[in-house]
Amino acid sequence: MADDDRLRTVDEHLATVLDGIGSIDPIELTLLDSQGLLLAEDVVTDVPLPGFDNSAMDGYAVRAVDTRDASPESPSVLPVVGDVAAGAKSRSGMGPGLAMRIMTGAPIPAGADAVIALEETDRGVARVAINREVVSGEHVRRAGEDLQSGAPALGAGAALGPQQLALLAAIGRDRVMVRPRPRVQVISTGSELIEVGHRAAFGEVTDCNSYLIAAAAKDAGADARRVGIVADDHAKLLDVLETQLLRADILVTTGGVSMGAFDVVKEALSELGTVEFTRVAMQPGKPQGFGHLGDRVPIFCLPGNPVSALVSFEVFVRPAIRKLLGKRNLHRATVQAVALERAESPEGRRQYRRGVLHREATGGYSVSLVGGAGSHLIASMASSNCLVVIDEEVTEVVAGSRVTVIPLLLSNR
Amino acid sequence: MADDDRLRTVDEHLATVLDGIGSIDPIELTLLDSQGLLLAEDVVTDVPLPGFDNSAMDGYAVRAVDTRDASPESPSVLPVVGDVAAGAKSRSGMGPGLAMRIMTGAPIPAGADAVIALEETDRGVARVAINREVVSGEHVRRAGEDLQSGAPALGAGAALGPQQLALLAAIGRDRVMVRPRPRVQVISTGSELIEVGHRAAFGEVTDCNSYLIAAAAKDAGADARRVGIVADDHAKLLDVLETQLLRADILVTTGGVSMGAFDVVKEALSELGTVEFTRVAMQPGKPQGFGHLGDRVPIFCLPGNPVSALVSFEVFVRPAIRKLLGKRNLHRATVQAVALERAESPEGRRQYRRGVLHREATGGYSVSLVGGAGSHLIASMASSNCLVVIDEEVTEVVAGSRVTVIPLLLSNR
Repeated sequence: MADDDRLRTVDEHLATVLDGIGSIDPIELTLLDSQGLLLAEDVVTDVPLPGFDNSAMDGYAVRAVDTRDASPESPSVLPVVGDVAAGAKSRSGMGPGLAMRIMTGAPIPAGADAVIALEETDRGVARVAINREVVSGEHVRRAGEDLQSGAPALGAGAALGPQQLALLAAIGRDRVMVRPRPRVQVISTGSELIEVGHRAAFGEVTDCNSYLIAAAAKDAGADARRVGIVADDHAKLLDVLETQLLRADILVTTGGVSMGAFDVVKEALSELGTVEFTRVAMQPGKPQGFGHLGDRVPIFCLPGNPVSALVSFEVFVRPAIRKLLGKRNLHRATVQAVALERAESPEGRRQYRRGVLHREATGGYSVSLVGGAGSHLIASMASSNCLVVIDEEVTEVVAGSRVTVIPLLLSNR
Repeated sequence: MADDDRLRTVDEHLATVLDGIGSIDPIELTLLDSQGLLLAEDVVTDVPLPGFDNSAMDGYAVRAVDTRDASPESPSVLPVVGDVAAGAKSRSGMGPGLAMRIMTGAPIPAGADAVIALEETDRGVARVAINREVVSGEHVRRAGEDLQSGAPALGAGAALGPQQLALLAAIGRDRVMVRPRPRVQVISTGSELIEVGHRAAFGEVTDCNSYLIAAAAKDAGADARRVGIVADDHAKLLDVLETQLLRADILVTTGGVSMGAFDVVKEALSELGTVEFTRVAMQPGKPQGFGHLGDRVPIFCLPGNPVSALVSFEVFVRPAIRKLLGKRNLHRATVQAVALERAESPEGRRQYRRGVLHREATGGYSVSLVGGAGSHLIASMASSNCLVVIDEEVTEVVAGSRVTVIPLLLSNR
């Protein structure tokens, strides 16, 4: 850790991080695999939508002129010369003065120019009585009226949700180029750590950071994997990092930046690349490591306290994942809320406190703090649903004043 | 389709649907597999958090009394009798008048009752000079201060995000009982349909509904599968439904409810269970089928036009999926927005129009309509990001008036 007194600001460190995040080459995926991702090509359709003139209703295909002056008193009565089903593979035709029964979606027969709905007729089988004048083009969906052949369907950067995937399917695309999910490999370092499911002996701590950060990275849209625990051991850490480098777009470690253990991490990293350890003017999360290993794979070395790790993830790693995903907006939305209690914050540091955000009946938000300043408090962290941001120059928030809140909204997946 | 004039209201049909949705037995999943789901058990911890008294700082463990009256002018100078590293497997001890170097997270040695941070000392190796009085308990994280052994950690119904998974890991739980993702099987019916990736001949239509509905169901939190296309053929449909029944918590079909084809679907369904076909007072989405097949597996028969299918999914199927997930709030949030243009709606029907929601610089929302009334318009559907709801009794929305909007926010996954 550099020992000069000047701390880097949160914004400066974030800028350094984002400068160090490149991009991932687009890949081709099947439609359902590309859900939630951004399109990486301009898609032009080579078929029109609809593909052919078809009926918008169950009814009768007619020529509009054959219904001229029709009325309930004096209906046009037309012979019904056949049925057109959806899925008809060839175009039927009919002469003047005739009608055909037609299903929704079925091709309009040659010779017809309109459809009259079943409900507006006597539903005749051999002949049909039509009680009103039909307008040419009525209930006909024209080929290409939704999208002409050769027209742009979706542009690069479009987010692929259900409707966009449906459009791609409709124009016959079963695979598209997308920006892939960044592969994020998460490593917990520390000789005190044991795997969940084993009973901790005295001095041992069950690893929870790798779950925390892998889940948060997945929530941010990454393809996140929990590598697991690595002891504060130079050779082991080197070995794990080298292996994971080959399958990572981002590496994240937590822990190992305190006295003693720190040197192990720092030495192992220096053999594989360049990682800068910085003190950032924030609380929690002051010690931050960021750099690149191997062939420019970004690595984040986050502090080991769970609250510090989560805050560091939210402030620095999440925007990096979103940049790799191609998202325009890298940051979570914030809301303004009324602080329900007083809070203190050290001058010159941006403080992130865990909070519980409440929606007021009157429409606004209020927020209460949970968990105090201790960044080891996992249970209270689990009861929070937001981060309260107290800016660098603010040293006291009085109850009733407005604060900026980052709701930690969860994805369903 | 029943021919009586009385349409069922949207709210009546939704109530019928939700009445017909039961629950799924909880299952045990590993932590990361349970992300995004709701806990189905009350979790009590049988270990305290932290597990043992440990240091909150890198520094020196001391007895507070040994620093009485210490000041920069007259520091307490204590012999350093050892190091305590994080991961130390047995508890060290020290006598009165001594100090030990200690890492963040390392166990407090017996005999010490406080920690002084490295920065507040001369960082001595053999002996350390301490410039101020230390308070007993300072920088000590007490065993159980976050969570006592035997205390409730998380209650049934808690949503499992990163922080909650971290807590479960920290208390040693590697698996938990959760409400599983409902398995939703999606079938497109229609003899005109072909698989995406094949060139449509005249009269053929590329299936897009199964992508649309499978993606929407996944977005809603389901484990959704696209079964694919089934022609309007009694035996084939029966066969597919019987097979899927065994692996479904919800079945969804689209199409096959228009004249002719309708009978095929209806007959096949009647052999496997009871499905009621209803006309609902909404636009689009009037024809709706809902019932149960086999051993009470709910089935939704949605109309075949993509826009109708999506609206029907949003209004009826999404709340059903969320009920099975155990969510308290079954419905999407709505916002009020200023309509940027005039819209008409038939009296007595609730109309759902596709729209583009804009966030105004002044803070509110405005919404413009896209795609007109045609429910076959897939390209315009893909350009929308919300549904505009026009209530049953409203026949005209004038430009500038306020309307209710359902933003179709997408999950990342």
